[in-house]
Amino acid sequence: MTWQRVVALSGGVGGARFADGLARALPRAALTVIVNTGDDFVHLGLYVCPDLDTVMYALAGVGDEERGWGLADETFSAMRMVARYGGPEWFSLGDRDLATHLLRTEALAAGESLSKVTTRLCGALGIDARILPMADGPCRTMVETADQGALPFQQWFVGARALPAVRAVRFEGRPPPAPGVLEAIEASDLVLIGPSNPYVSIDPILSIDGVRAALASKLVVAVSPILAGRAVKGPLAAMIPQLSGTPPSAAAIARHYGSLLEGIVVERGDERELENRAVLATNILMKTRDDRLRLAREALAFAMEIRR
Amino acid sequence: MTWQRVVALSGGVGGARFADGLARALPRAALTVIVNTGDDFVHLGLYVCPDLDTVMYALAGVGDEERGWGLADETFSAMRMVARYGGPEWFSLGDRDLATHLLRTEALAAGESLSKVTTRLCGALGIDARILPMADGPCRTMVETADQGALPFQQWFVGARALPAVRAVRFEGRPPPAPGVLEAIEASDLVLIGPSNPYVSIDPILSIDGVRAALASKLVVAVSPILAGRAVKGPLAAMIPQLSGTPPSAAAIARHYGSLLEGIVVERGDERELENRAVLATNILMKTRDDRLRLAREALAFAMEIRR
Repeated sequence: MTWQRVVALSGGVGGARFADGLARALPRAALTVIVNTGDDFVHLGLYVCPDLDTVMYALAGVGDEERGWGLADETFSAMRMVARYGGPEWFSLGDRDLATHLLRTEALAAGESLSKVTTRLCGALGIDARILPMADGPCRTMVETADQGALPFQQWFVGARALPAVRAVRFEGRPPPAPGVLEAIEASDLVLIGPSNPYVSIDPILSIDGVRAALASKLVVAVSPILAGRAVKGPLAAMIPQLSGTPPSAAAIARHYGSLLEGIVVERGDERELENRAVLATNILMKTRDDRLRLAREALAFAMEIRR
Repeated sequence: MTWQRVVALSGGVGGARFADGLARALPRAALTVIVNTGDDFVHLGLYVCPDLDTVMYALAGVGDEERGWGLADETFSAMRMVARYGGPEWFSLGDRDLATHLLRTEALAAGESLSKVTTRLCGALGIDARILPMADGPCRTMVETADQGALPFQQWFVGARALPAVRAVRFEGRPPPAPGVLEAIEASDLVLIGPSNPYVSIDPILSIDGVRAALASKLVVAVSPILAGRAVKGPLAAMIPQLSGTPPSAAAIARHYGSLLEGIVVERGDERELENRAVLATNILMKTRDDRLRLAREALAFAMEIRR
């Protein structure tokens, strides 16, 4: 037997790759991906949803595999011209990627909800899985830094290259969950937390009213975003000591989620730190699309085991 | 001696090419180009000013010479992606061109006026001439068609390929002239009307309050957009019979402007229809950038002659 109703919580690159594996490992339409929108921001007048787009592009098979964000075979002519005009250069949007932001911004301005626009764009890209923003309303991830005060996530992450040390992360705005979010969790047999940054990718989702409560009665399994003490991508390895006072490790991830998790999937070797947990130790690095599928299958099988 | 303060009225391609010639023929900063904004429209949420952009790109030397609109060496990746999403395909915006629309739309949304944004963008592109939109507020060119009722200009021109027969052209909105428009005309020694469509490119400018009155006391010379009964580009040759009941000719252009003009520059041979007018007959087709400069110099010299 296999899982029929699975929810994945996802941030950017790692979570998106894992969600792509899940979408291919599971029966058609069995997967709902609930995506962090705390990173969303307006750039050049466009409403940009980095994590939603990364998940959407990954599941459509059009994402850039090397860069981790944006579309494959992308060009950046518009941004070079923006630079020639003396416009902002700190955040780059690809030419084809602009189509996503243009259509979304136009639809939002016309009153369509973010979740409806997302469904429409995903449909046009031929995605079977359901991709839901965690909320239609704004919930902004703010990074409290030691040196520069509170920075909106993208200004810290991209603008300041995630260099300023982090004192705390908080979320501004308390939007209700997007339609379908709580329902999908409640109807699910399994919830998987992708290998995303817990502080800035998953915690925003968990901050949405009703999400933690809905998860409390569910089988929840996470895939560690830390392997052998390092993050595959992004600033997580530096954030863990800053925010938890402990070294970066899969154990720190497990501690962060606490009683939310029934089990955790970690890199082979990292299971030694996790003696009191249901752990699957495997190769969690997703270099290829095949890796995604393999890891998804292993995580689904592991969850089936611990359900018994 | 040469002209020190010249105003050019311009629509799209022809007027922009002539303005480029003028900018190079005249002393630095002697030229003010007042540009039609009746074609402006919102596409994909972006505020697009086709004529302003064509003039700006021509004077910056970055316009596409073949196509007549947009930027040289342009790519269209964003629009192909828009099409993949099922978005509107009837109006194409180049990738680099998008930078213009994005920065302008963002600035307008932040409360900057169209004329100020235009000055800023022109400055970034290194343009010495002053380029002014005819108005900061909306004045929309509406084309009354026999078959399809009233169409906004771009929907008629691009969307319907200018095929529906035109009964009348009218302008919706009565914005005041943009700051500097009347002042530039009043301070000018010479006003040149570029080889633009009189009905949809120049008449919108003339419809702005105060423009006709300011022009009445000025030396005004037009360059015919019709040569040997044909328009170089666009729907003008078909519009003249529809709107004036006479065949397309340089004489029809002269009649249209009436007493506004002191003289007209026409294609060699077309002067035969214009016996009671001050006429310069020359080669008015601008194939190369050299042609623009030559025609500009000839028009300026002709105006100097008829001023005496």
